[in-house]
Amino acid sequence: MASSVTPPRGMRDFLPADKARREHALGSIRQAYRAHGFDEIETPVMEDAAYLHAGLGGDNEKLAFAVMRRGITDEALAAAAASGDALSLADLGLRFDLTVPLARFYASHRADLPAVFRAIQVAPVWRAERPQKGRFRQFMQCDIDIIGEAGMLAEVELISATASAIDALGLVGCRIRVNDRRILARLLDTWAVPAELHERALITIDKLDKIGVSGVAEELAGLGVDAASAAETLGSIQNAGWHLADEGEPPAWLDLDVYDELLAIRAAVTGIELDFDPTLVRGMGYYTGTIFEISHPELGYSLGGGGRYDGMIGRFLGSEVPACGFSIGFERIIDLLADDDDAVTDAVLVIHEKNASPAELMALKQRLVAEGARVRLAGRTKNTRALLERALADGFSRYAFVAADGEIGPFRPLGSSLD
Amino acid sequence: MASSVTPPRGMRDFLPADKARREHALGSIRQAYRAHGFDEIETPVMEDAAYLHAGLGGDNEKLAFAVMRRGITDEALAAAAASGDALSLADLGLRFDLTVPLARFYASHRADLPAVFRAIQVAPVWRAERPQKGRFRQFMQCDIDIIGEAGMLAEVELISATASAIDALGLVGCRIRVNDRRILARLLDTWAVPAELHERALITIDKLDKIGVSGVAEELAGLGVDAASAAETLGSIQNAGWHLADEGEPPAWLDLDVYDELLAIRAAVTGIELDFDPTLVRGMGYYTGTIFEISHPELGYSLGGGGRYDGMIGRFLGSEVPACGFSIGFERIIDLLADDDDAVTDAVLVIHEKNASPAELMALKQRLVAEGARVRLAGRTKNTRALLERALADGFSRYAFVAADGEIGPFRPLGSSLD
Repeated sequence: MASSVTPPRGMRDFLPADKARREHALGSIRQAYRAHGFDEIETPVMEDAAYLHAGLGGDNEKLAFAVMRRGITDEALAAAAASGDALSLADLGLRFDLTVPLARFYASHRADLPAVFRAIQVAPVWRAERPQKGRFRQFMQCDIDIIGEAGMLAEVELISATASAIDALGLVGCRIRVNDRRILARLLDTWAVPAELHERALITIDKLDKIGVSGVAEELAGLGVDAASAAETLGSIQNAGWHLADEGEPPAWLDLDVYDELLAIRAAVTGIELDFDPTLVRGMGYYTGTIFEISHPELGYSLGGGGRYDGMIGRFLGSEVPACGFSIGFERIIDLLADDDDAVTDAVLVIHEKNASPAELMALKQRLVAEGARVRLAGRTKNTRALLERALADGFSRYAFVAADGEIGPFRPLGSSLD
Repeated sequence: MASSVTPPRGMRDFLPADKARREHALGSIRQAYRAHGFDEIETPVMEDAAYLHAGLGGDNEKLAFAVMRRGITDEALAAAAASGDALSLADLGLRFDLTVPLARFYASHRADLPAVFRAIQVAPVWRAERPQKGRFRQFMQCDIDIIGEAGMLAEVELISATASAIDALGLVGCRIRVNDRRILARLLDTWAVPAELHERALITIDKLDKIGVSGVAEELAGLGVDAASAAETLGSIQNAGWHLADEGEPPAWLDLDVYDELLAIRAAVTGIELDFDPTLVRGMGYYTGTIFEISHPELGYSLGGGGRYDGMIGRFLGSEVPACGFSIGFERIIDLLADDDDAVTDAVLVIHEKNASPAELMALKQRLVAEGARVRLAGRTKNTRALLERALADGFSRYAFVAADGEIGPFRPLGSSLD
């Protein structure tokens, strides 16, 4: 029986070493965000199904775990069976992201929040994904959002705060790719893609890394775009970056006002370099302006991203509220981090004879704790070495023996004794 | 519409001030536990329904939120309707406590854990309670458990670590009530309560605070107990405490071995006083030995509790494993704590003209952050005083103005300027 006892499919337990590592990293992220003036909030893990399925979550809405209504009547069950609508039996759902809950939170508490509200959310989300390597059904998200700031200062603060967090994690070599949905829209207009096909065209451009210029041009042709012209434009964009507007006449599709704003953002952001990529799309449909992504030259995937989504936060409020957010891909980043040297505190292993007096052991432990140490008691076993090795691996720094009569032996450093 | 946007019934949002307060308290608790040699672990919020409903959770099992199976077929829906069994549509559930997940975790990872495993779990649980004041459907639990230690050292370490945590929270005047299920069993035996009625009798004794000696004696009479004799025994117990065994012959129902162990625990525990209460029951059916509760002379309810539950942790493993745990009632305690003076860090409000350069603002912000400050930018409004007052309430300590041309005014302390 024992071998088959596991957490639910696609979900993970964290043992002490992993838990400590994760909490340490999350603490660094929170601290960086706080220093940059953001404030942490918390919402329940569940939301009413009506808010969760209001159309703000894109494809992720389909992945929401549904929580069953309490006390389902036979009539409700029969009605669900007749209509084939199992979801009618659920009134709550687990959040699939932190943006929908933020919109709901803002609508609930706007009166108590400052005019410009800088929110931190560091919390788990759930998605009923098909199990596959590296995809989890419960995972952490680390979001910061600025609500109520229409100007580019929002983007500047978000990207700079994220740069601070990345720095605090000790992750080197990261850069930020930026673009603006309005530039993408202009590009599609020059290709004469009708507005109702923009979303499909963006999904195609988003595949550039995977299928290349010719692949994208070919797919765009299916939407009525001249493939040769599209291929030429896409080819000219690649690697041009910030120089796109430098050489001679800027391309017709480059919205110069928006481009100038991106330049100003680049100039104001601290702590990280920005790259301009006019083909950057970002998946979510709710973005309305700037979009950005954390990139790393040695990685084929982004480590987080975000952008401006002015239409969304006000949805439950019935009014338009400017908003911009940045999310760190915590589950991707945590695997990249070096082990931290967490032997900051004095940690003492006390190995005692099994019949040593609990009162004397506790008095010793309390004395060490009062001196600022972390203390682990361990009953002596035949294999003392195993106790020492585990304590060393767990970051303990010294140890002592306590005899049956309560006599305390000398404290010795843990490292050297195991050579 | 706005006024009706709320979190799900019985669940709460936490705004920045409350969130900071809660995280600060949770941090203090975690730190105390860690100092005492406990290690934090994490399990998913959901467990497979089979584990959640294995009979380890007592009445709380009925309060588990059920999470619907993915892709429910019409056949499954029809079958559920035919049998009236809505729960057949759920394969997962949200945990209602942290003890069932700990038993499952231990069964999953025993090979990787030390022989004596001291676990911290600080995490939310969910119960579909009927909404009422002070009862939440999502709330935090702070549990420590020692698995694999059969001796009283487990109780001593758990109670002492809890005392440290209470102390770190700044909560004064708490005491610990202790008893042992074996003493209660002996008491019921002397009243000739048959074993199969013990559980009902314990539920009755548990009401002593509410219905008094005569009320309990009357209810016990319904189980065949001689009411007069029960009333006399209960009367003699009240307030006798540790002196029960002192005066002349100890009562026949007092198991002296167990009582001596309680005395030894009292002598070894550090940081808090223990009171002996032979009528202390604790609700959960899984306790097998010592039980304890945090009490406060000015409060009519306990602030946490725990005990030994040797039969349970091994259930998913198919073997007996000694275990003892202590849980702090976080939601009750957080309301008792004084506001913490969280102005430990330098926090700076930078009020800027709306058209000040983002690059210059960000450079100033970054410089202050690098110096260790927390920085909030705020666009100047007509009501500057409101900005200052909010920042002061939020723990900010000084402020400066930045003009449109980027000139930085003098930094002034926030408190005095608002007099």
